[in-house]
Amino acid sequence: MTAMLADASTVAQVVVQPAVFEDRSSIRDILLGSDIFGVSDADCVDEMFVETWQKRPVENDSYRWLSCRLDGVMAGFACYGTEALTHNTWDLFWICVLPEARGKGAGRALMMEAEAQARAARGRVMVIYTSSTPKYAPARRLYEGAGFTRTAVVPAYYSEGDDLHIYWKRL
Amino acid sequence: MTAMLADASTVAQVVVQPAVFEDRSSIRDILLGSDIFGVSDADCVDEMFVETWQKRPVENDSYRWLSCRLDGVMAGFACYGTEALTHNTWDLFWICVLPEARGKGAGRALMMEAEAQARAARGRVMVIYTSSTPKYAPARRLYEGAGFTRTAVVPAYYSEGDDLHIYWKRL
Repeated sequence: MTAMLADASTVAQVVVQPAVFEDRSSIRDILLGSDIFGVSDADCVDEMFVETWQKRPVENDSYRWLSCRLDGVMAGFACYGTEALTHNTWDLFWICVLPEARGKGAGRALMMEAEAQARAARGRVMVIYTSSTPKYAPARRLYEGAGFTRTAVVPAYYSEGDDLHIYWKRL
Repeated sequence: MTAMLADASTVAQVVVQPAVFEDRSSIRDILLGSDIFGVSDADCVDEMFVETWQKRPVENDSYRWLSCRLDGVMAGFACYGTEALTHNTWDLFWICVLPEARGKGAGRALMMEAEAQARAARGRVMVIYTSSTPKYAPARRLYEGAGFTRTAVVPAYYSEGDDLHIYWKRL
């Protein structure tokens, strides 16, 4: 019983839900506190977030947003949606979890929910675009652990020495 | 001299210039008359075109447009610009020439001007996303002839049996 209590005290409750507009500043804080993304990324995400709410109701080309709370506190988010000009190909545009919340299943829970929603909307394939650099290694491991395969590499895409890796999964 | 006159009568004058807003309907007509693109593509391009003029003056993330005239008549266009969140990677988003105008250097002239402009704006790399299907074979040959290499393939990206091919060139 002691062991169970010890487990219970360290296992956080992970809850993934559709984001609400009030999550906007938390999403920005998560990006800026991620040790991965910077101000230009946070600005890009914020523009996408605001555009999503301006374009309500949800249409086929809308961005979808998920918020993840660990024990009730915002710890991560994901943004996904359909790829323009494709037939039911979905894209996990952004996924980010605060460093102190990593290793607790938040990233995996966000990915699984995005995949489930895409599948429910008749998604065929999901792609993720990411960087080849060392700081994205945990992200790449997350994608690979979720069954994505690296299907393509575009050299020097982000900058010199920073290739684009495209991950791919059939839904 | 006869030979030269014969040449002169069959060689069209190819002029590539920055597009003006009045080219909007011609660009739509070129897409719809292309035997390649459809209404959803024309709608997407038109939205990008209008957005470009709404966002004047040209900023780093603006779309750039080129119109190509053969003997003074609109025969093709290109749309290119920077890739978001990259360091000076450029993208040839759209290039299209009317069927009756093909084989006269219009496509090549549009590509060369887009590349030249990107290079002048310190572009490092240019990418082109295209389809693996037979109707895009002339486009793929155009890109390969201009020195682009197919650097990546994403299976079933556009639809089942229709892969994404990414062409790449160092500027």
